[in-house]
Amino acid sequence: MNITLNEEVLKDNNTAAAYNRDHFRNSGTLVINVMSSPGAGKTTLLEATVRELSNRYRIGVIEGDLATEMDADRIRAVGAQAVQINTHGGCHLDARMVAKTLPEFQMDELDLLFIENVGNLVCPSGYDLGQHHKIAVLSIPEGNDKIPKYPTMFMRTELVLLNKIDLLPYLDFSVEQALKDLEAIQPKSALMPISARTNEGMEQWYAWIDNAYRAMKEA
Amino acid sequence: MNITLNEEVLKDNNTAAAYNRDHFRNSGTLVINVMSSPGAGKTTLLEATVRELSNRYRIGVIEGDLATEMDADRIRAVGAQAVQINTHGGCHLDARMVAKTLPEFQMDELDLLFIENVGNLVCPSGYDLGQHHKIAVLSIPEGNDKIPKYPTMFMRTELVLLNKIDLLPYLDFSVEQALKDLEAIQPKSALMPISARTNEGMEQWYAWIDNAYRAMKEA
Repeated sequence: MNITLNEEVLKDNNTAAAYNRDHFRNSGTLVINVMSSPGAGKTTLLEATVRELSNRYRIGVIEGDLATEMDADRIRAVGAQAVQINTHGGCHLDARMVAKTLPEFQMDELDLLFIENVGNLVCPSGYDLGQHHKIAVLSIPEGNDKIPKYPTMFMRTELVLLNKIDLLPYLDFSVEQALKDLEAIQPKSALMPISARTNEGMEQWYAWIDNAYRAMKEA
Repeated sequence: MNITLNEEVLKDNNTAAAYNRDHFRNSGTLVINVMSSPGAGKTTLLEATVRELSNRYRIGVIEGDLATEMDADRIRAVGAQAVQINTHGGCHLDARMVAKTLPEFQMDELDLLFIENVGNLVCPSGYDLGQHHKIAVLSIPEGNDKIPKYPTMFMRTELVLLNKIDLLPYLDFSVEQALKDLEAIQPKSALMPISARTNEGMEQWYAWIDNAYRAMKEA
């Protein structure tokens, strides 16, 4: 019974994800689903990204949170359009929630759409939103054990932004160990050490977006 | 349909939680359900607590994680009995999972039982495990917006351990703002600034446990 319902829910989700994917293809918008623990720095990453890339891409952001418009307001303050989804207790975004926000954007005029998922290292990983890329942000203060302890997230993402490297001098964290752990769980995933706050390493992230955008256009 | 099933699931959970509660009452064991984001410092808190309190309480720990025995091994290394639950993708512990581990402890010989929930600031808050107290750990690097953004957790806990205050000099975090936000969402909850790593402020946490243990014995 439980399993049947879950399969139905996922089937419905996949239908909505396919609908989203069609929309994104038609409008030529590159869509990136950004996931992490609460407080890993997703919004700070997107603020910096909007500031840096607004001169060459038209950017929109969907913000997922249980409550408040705080994150959407932060994105609007740096000049991008943001639509806030409140899940009212729900632990992840699903494809239907995303589908419902699309009419609020002029999709034909968007080059990049970031979807900032609910802060949660478990639930969001299982839901296809129709995005081109699923990425995870992992922050240094969360500690070295997160990749093996949250395998469902890290086996389903293709890029891990290792954020807050400005705090490395104050914490015990081995970047080398994180590389090993990620290689063991998802050999195709890249690990990119950055600090969204100090901008260290962010040029790799911007180059990754440029490559992904080019690949989408050439496909 | 969805709602009916969720109600069934919660009803089953409440039945198991009542079963656990009876067990804890009969054995005279104080049980604390510890919840937080991934990497907020729950295991480090429990390591320090076992080290400090083992001379006056007999302590057991249930560890909840998607995968690995890493946390249970850390607790065993400081000398307490630990039983690891692996949820295999599940985003929270439920009362039945806890009930199944109880035969692995000699409950009559345990004064304190800590249940370290899956690292997740959303899902665990809705599930009664039969515990006496639900507490949250919030860490400084997660940032000042977590209390308003994750209200279901902070309205359902009676104590927030504000961990990693040793990192305050390197981050923008206002303890005063956190106090205001918690007061707005759950006026009965206390906020306790600590560092489980440096031991700063930990004496308040140990005093809180002593009071809770005494109150249980007098009830």
